Parts: sequence; C-alpha cells; structure tokens
Amino acid sequence: MKLLVVGSVALDTIESPAGRAEETLGGSAAFFATAASFFAPVSLVAVVGDDLDEAMLEPLHRENIDLSGLHRAAGRTFRWAGRYSEDLLRRETLFTELGVFSHFRPSLPESLRDAELVFLGNIDPELQAEVLGQVKDPALVAADTMNFWIAGKPRELERVLARIHVLIINDEEARQLAREHNLVRAVARIRELGPRTVIVKRGDSGALMLGDDSPFVVPALPLHDVVDPTGAGDSFAGGFMGELARARQSGSGVMRRAAVAGAALGSFCVEGFGMDRLVRLQWEDVSARIGALRDLMRVDD
Amino acid sequence: MKLLVVGSVALDTIESPAGRAEETLGGSAAFFATAASFFAPVSLVAVVGDDLDEAMLEPLHRENIDLSGLHRAAGRTFRWAGRYSEDLLRRETLFTELGVFSHFRPSLPESLRDAELVFLGNIDPELQAEVLGQVKDPALVAADTMNFWIAGKPRELERVLARIHVLIINDEEARQLAREHNLVRAVARIRELGPRTVIVKRGDSGALMLGDDSPFVVPALPLHDVVDPTGAGDSFAGGFMGELARARQSGSGVMRRAAVAGAALGSFCVEGFGMDRLVRLQWEDVSARIGALRDLMRVDD
Repeated sequence: MKLLVVGSVALDTIESPAGRAEETLGGSAAFFATAASFFAPVSLVAVVGDDLDEAMLEPLHRENIDLSGLHRAAGRTFRWAGRYSEDLLRRETLFTELGVFSHFRPSLPESLRDAELVFLGNIDPELQAEVLGQVKDPALVAADTMNFWIAGKPRELERVLARIHVLIINDEEARQLAREHNLVRAVARIRELGPRTVIVKRGDSGALMLGDDSPFVVPALPLHDVVDPTGAGDSFAGGFMGELARARQSGSGVMRRAAVAGAALGSFCVEGFGMDRLVRLQWEDVSARIGALRDLMRVDD
Repeated sequence: MKLLVVGSVALDTIESPAGRAEETLGGSAAFFATAASFFAPVSLVAVVGDDLDEAMLEPLHRENIDLSGLHRAAGRTFRWAGRYSEDLLRRETLFTELGVFSHFRPSLPESLRDAELVFLGNIDPELQAEVLGQVKDPALVAADTMNFWIAGKPRELERVLARIHVLIINDEEARQLAREHNLVRAVARIRELGPRTVIVKRGDSGALMLGDDSPFVVPALPLHDVVDPTGAGDSFAGGFMGELARARQSGSGVMRRAAVAGAALGSFCVEGFGMDRLVRLQWEDVSARIGALRDLMRVDD
C-alpha cells in the first residue's frame, strides 16, 4: 500500500546526559520515513531551506524512501534545539526557528495523491488538513499532534481529528486534549472527536492502543543505555504505519503487530543521537528486536 | 507449597479524589494474604493491638487464610493515614502511629517453620531477618522494602537482600537503592546484592521482571476508575506468590504467569478503598481478569 508522510525535516541540536549533537538531521517526517522504510516504500513530503548541504540529506537516501515530495525553498531550514534532564524525563526547548517551514504550503505531486496510508506528522493542523484534502481516497489516515497546537489551534485540530482513523499521541498530550487525567476516559473522549483508534505513547512505559477491539499494550524494551529520546515517537509511528503498509491490511491482529514494530523502531531511535542509530540498522537488527519485544510479553500456558 | 507472609495489619485512613475511608483494614500482610488466598492457602504473621474489634478482622476470615500467627498485644494497632493527589500519582503521609508494631518481635508457631514460600512484607529489615531465621529451609523467599528502610537501615537491609531470591520493589525505590536512574542498570546492581530476580512495580505502567531468564513486562490493565492505590503493591506480591504456591514450582514460565496473577490482583485492589474490592471478589472475577491481562499482551502470528 502506498504510504505517505507529511511533516518536518529539521536540523536538531540536542543536549542530553550522554553528550551533545549539533545540527543533526531530524524532524518528524525524517524519523518517520526512516523507520517506515524497513517495512515498505514511503513517500516523504516536507520542505528544507537552501542552506541545507545536500550531503546532510544523505541519511534519507534509502532504497525505500521517495523524496520527490521534498521541497527546496529559499531561506533557512527548520531548526530546533533542546536539552534533556539528567533522568531523560523532561525536555527543555532552547530555541525553535521555523525558517522555510513558516511559509510551507504543501502541494502533493500528482503521483502521491493516490496514497492509501497517510501519516500527518506533528505540524500545524491547518497544514495537516491541507495535505489530507489533496489525497483522493486514503484507506487509513493517522496523525500526531502536540501541546502547542492543542492549546493554540483547537478548532483546526478538531477538524483534523474528525477526518483521521488513528491518533498517535503521547500521554500528557492525550490528557491535555481530553482535559482528563485518567487515560481510559481521556481516550474515550478523544475517540468521540473522530479517530476510531488512539495510540497513547508513554515513553519508557511503552504504548497503549485503544479502539473498537480489546485494548493492547506494547511495553518499551528495557534499555541499558538511553542516549537521546528525540524522534522516538515519530519512529514508533513510522514502524507502525510501515508494518501496516507491508501487511496491506489493518485488522486488529495486524494493528497489534504494527504497534510492536513501532516499539522496536522507537527503542532503537533512543539508543543514538538523532537518527544515528536508525540509519545504521539492518533488517536483521529490526527483526531481532521485534522478537525481543514479543518475548518480553510472552506468557505460555 | 506452604506460603507464609510476615508484615503489618493496620488501620488505614485514606483520602483520595474518589473520597475518604476512615480506619479501614489494611497493612502489607492483610493485602498480601487476601490476594494470595485466591490461589493457595497462606499463613499470616503480624500483630494487632487490643483496641481492634474482632469484627474488624472479619475480612481476613477466609477459607485460605491461616491466622494462627496473628498476635494480639496490649496497646494500639498500627495506624496510617495518607492523602493522594488529584492525579493519584503522589501520596502524602498524614501520620504513622506504630502502636504495638514498635515492639513486635515475631515468633513463628512451630507449624509455620517449615514454610516453603516466604514473603517478607515491607517492615523493618531487622524483623524481616528475624522471621527468616526461624524458617527452616524455604525454597523461595521474596521481600519488599521502602525508602524509609533504604535510607535508615541500609546495612540491615543489605543483610536481608543477601538471603532472598526475589525482591519486589517499586521503581523509585529501586532507583534509590541502586543510586542509579536507569532501571536496567539499577536492577543489575540490586541483583549483585543477592536477589536473583527483581520485580520492579511501576504503578499504572505495570511491572518489569528481570532475572536469569529473559526480561518480562506485565502491563497494568487500563482502568476507567481508580479509587485508592493503597495496597496495590502488596496485592501484586500476594497474587504472585499465591500463584507460585498453587503451581508448586518457580521456573521461568511459572514466574511469568505468577506476575500476571499479581497484576490482576493489583488492578482489583485499586478499584476500591482499602480491601473493599478484594474481599468481594469471586474466583471467576480473578480468572476473567487474568484473561483480560493476557489478551492485553497478546500478539498473534
């Protein structure tokens, strides 16, 4: 199934207890596409500035990533800088420079308008809606969002929520969106806004999937070394949607396997700065980690 | 296998967003024994004061609970009062009154000294050691502890840790005990102190079991209504040890099933004040919830 992601491609500067990375390639679409590419072809729609050296995009030159929707615009590439706390549980944004992203009006190449699976990365809900309007008849649309849009563009966000099938969101944002602390009740409220399925990302506690079928929890793999959590959520979404594209279906059993694939990619992501770990993986690594996650959850009779 | 628990029987006063309970029966041994009793016979060793109306102990009069080790002493029963935050994530102790517990020197009846499975509830590590010394040749000993003893009696606690097989502890206390934030590394350090297996309780994120075999995570059941978290950890331990006693073995597969049984009892515990929910359960409820937890973790090929 043809898989499309719209989101950001960015230059991230990251400080964590494990060290520092300066202007490393990141952004929701970059993490998503890299993670998804282990499972199926994926087309990336995003914009970068003319300041970006072509060599910086090298990590995205992968067999399964189609960059025909990556625009070049005059101006500076989206930049973000953040610092993680000693326990990696809190993140402080040091600066955000939207650059060319502030004027981004995505126009899908004709060849991408028949995408069957669409992921709307964490960008302005007005842009999410604009992209979605250009896709003819998608079978499944998933989206992410964040506190900034929940607080700043609630009505635009609600219009997006009404049109998507799966919301992939972190726990704090689910609580903020639903104005409810209890996650079961929060998800019930969010589902009333549109998405049939909500996947709540909970960092090192894994992810919770609630929908029409019985609830599912995929744990996070217990890791000895966590270097940089940046992009873990987008890597989860990429693994999830990539596996759906590979399986060519989205029934309950496939959704569960897709969530395990997502957790595997998320766990790799945090083991290096930016996309360092993701881009070095072989399929055998991914497959072994999916096996480790399934073993982590296995109960025999 | 003969199962023994030593711990507290207390009168708890609890304030939570769901309401208030005044002097309700609680304590680590009471929660543990009630949870374990669904699976196997359990003998309780604890002390109560002469102020405790016999009717207050009625919840512990269950077919599978042996109260021959429950001492009566002159004085007041152990009392504890606590208040939970709006999101149930934080707990403030309002007062602790040790009462007869401050002079408790447990002496095991002869009939309990051949116990094969022993749980040392969260009490003074010197008392834990004293009880353990009276058990002839236990096959498996598990224990819990808390920040108060980790900070206050580190050497006494280390002597207990050297003699037990399974430590069942919450995440913050594991970090404090190991002086290490990363849970995988924290558990590795704790295992060097003695216990072959460490089960880290993570509240609504479930529990992580690390030992000689591959890691295991049992999720917490997503609950619509959480009333009172008091006793959930002891209920987990009771379900865990109860299932080991029922199965009469402690291999890797049994340990995993036991952790699921523990999670089931922990999830019931938080749905009522004190032991309200636990004491009303039928075996069918417990069995159905174990099934729900296994379904929560199920991934089909």
